[in-house]
Amino acid sequence: MSNSETQRYAILGAGALGGLYGGMLARSGAEVHFLLNSDYQHVSRHGLRVESPLGDFHLPQVYTHSSPETMPACDVSIVALKTTSNHLLPKMLPSTTRDGGIVLVLQNGLNIEADSAAIVGTERVLGGCCFLCSNKTGPGFIKHLDYGHIVFGEYDQRSAQISTRVQRIADEMNAAGIDAQPTTDLAAARWRKLMWNIPFNGLSVVLDASTKQLIDDPDAVQLVETMIDEVHHAATGNGVHVDPSLKSLTVEVTRKMVPYDSSMRLDYLNRRPMEVEAIFGNPLKAARRFNLKMPTVTMLYQQLKFIDRLNADLSPPL
Amino acid sequence: MSNSETQRYAILGAGALGGLYGGMLARSGAEVHFLLNSDYQHVSRHGLRVESPLGDFHLPQVYTHSSPETMPACDVSIVALKTTSNHLLPKMLPSTTRDGGIVLVLQNGLNIEADSAAIVGTERVLGGCCFLCSNKTGPGFIKHLDYGHIVFGEYDQRSAQISTRVQRIADEMNAAGIDAQPTTDLAAARWRKLMWNIPFNGLSVVLDASTKQLIDDPDAVQLVETMIDEVHHAATGNGVHVDPSLKSLTVEVTRKMVPYDSSMRLDYLNRRPMEVEAIFGNPLKAARRFNLKMPTVTMLYQQLKFIDRLNADLSPPL
Repeated sequence: MSNSETQRYAILGAGALGGLYGGMLARSGAEVHFLLNSDYQHVSRHGLRVESPLGDFHLPQVYTHSSPETMPACDVSIVALKTTSNHLLPKMLPSTTRDGGIVLVLQNGLNIEADSAAIVGTERVLGGCCFLCSNKTGPGFIKHLDYGHIVFGEYDQRSAQISTRVQRIADEMNAAGIDAQPTTDLAAARWRKLMWNIPFNGLSVVLDASTKQLIDDPDAVQLVETMIDEVHHAATGNGVHVDPSLKSLTVEVTRKMVPYDSSMRLDYLNRRPMEVEAIFGNPLKAARRFNLKMPTVTMLYQQLKFIDRLNADLSPPL
Repeated sequence: MSNSETQRYAILGAGALGGLYGGMLARSGAEVHFLLNSDYQHVSRHGLRVESPLGDFHLPQVYTHSSPETMPACDVSIVALKTTSNHLLPKMLPSTTRDGGIVLVLQNGLNIEADSAAIVGTERVLGGCCFLCSNKTGPGFIKHLDYGHIVFGEYDQRSAQISTRVQRIADEMNAAGIDAQPTTDLAAARWRKLMWNIPFNGLSVVLDASTKQLIDDPDAVQLVETMIDEVHHAATGNGVHVDPSLKSLTVEVTRKMVPYDSSMRLDYLNRRPMEVEAIFGNPLKAARRFNLKMPTVTMLYQQLKFIDRLNADLSPPL
């Protein structure tokens, strides 16, 4: 199953994102180790199944682990957990990552690499943004719906050129059929992604609506546009250049998107904690540092914290 | 049943508000005619029942009408309909109000007297704000929970003194046990009421929460305070003085209030149209006239319009 020329990958969290990309890497012959929680038994027995417009596939056998201790030291650990589970990283990363190995953080939000950097050191951390519609619809079953682009690069942004290690991962991902694009400006990718995540994740929860319902309503679209403006303004204030044409493009892309439940809405509907701090709290902190106001994003943040708290009260005890 | 010394009243809409105040006036001996819709049969047979901390009472027989045509011309027509039913007023007011008679508008919102004024003339219109927690819990059954204060006055605010006609209604209401207070500054009363209605009506719908759940949550309270500031600022910009101490008092009063479902939340839960324009759209228009920004109130307005539209789609056809 392994290919001596490709690096060894650890996938931490085999959900909609880790399952898809990890599965594609494994399919291409890379040695990929999945750290699983609730799906461990099922995936160990039945493997991983992916439905995707890029081609359906089933991997009957994959390397599965229920604990980081059994994982081999990998060249690249891909963090594909929800940020609400970041408290688990100190137990995971030292086991799953070889000395000098790389941690690629593919989580939503801003400055969410900081938790991984605190464990393995900033210089070993890469970050990436995934632009994709994908859901885990059952144990070991990933339904990839639309898009699938990854933009990733060095977390420590002082290098002006694509580093060798970033390029190598990009090459291996591309060989696996993943549309991965290296960048020297991770911050721009993060803020650009927030231009979508902030309005659409947040409003889909507060207004209990799919992206299609939001994009079809004139008032919701107006509100989305206000929020995109605030996010773009905060990016600029933080010294990050995001092409202004991407503001309207973010709306247009969503108009053409399949009707989609954002990850935050699924978390909400399944009474899991939502990534409120990563996606809202951290950008608001970044804006405050430069005295920038984000009134509608602030309000959405407050509304989500209220809903998240109520949702936690309703959850069955763990 | 009638008392020749008190005026004859028409109550348009015998819900939580019209049922309570109309019932109290009738109990005191005034001739009160109720214009009813769905409750007509029930109230005609069983009368009106009120549960209230001011004293429970049952009026086995009241004057009921299912159409404005059978109503006698009254001295005072009290408009206690939802503003979403204001399209019915042109058929009602000319029948229910005698020549030169008065229309007292006890609806929520801003500039909501305009619809009545367009029918009978501005000079015949009074407006009032009710500070009360009251619900209609069944046909002809009003459950008054808390508070009950009315502040009312001339819609045409050029008079500096309490007019004779306002004083007369206040006297009759007070004699009926209603805590009615005349004012020469209706606009101040309206904006002061909006300081409650805007945050608590709106957020109780968007966050699907009771006033108690909102007031117990630190983020919701922070958001409520931001909105109260915006409303107060818009009032000031419109040349209306509302004592700044009322900003914190509005929160404090709600903290001591019985857990309460706002009228807007009840409308939402019962899939009735919400008073979005009266309570949000009109104050926003007033703010825009003076170039004042209300970012969180604007966002709440947009969210409510989205929800109201979706709610209408879910409703069974009339």
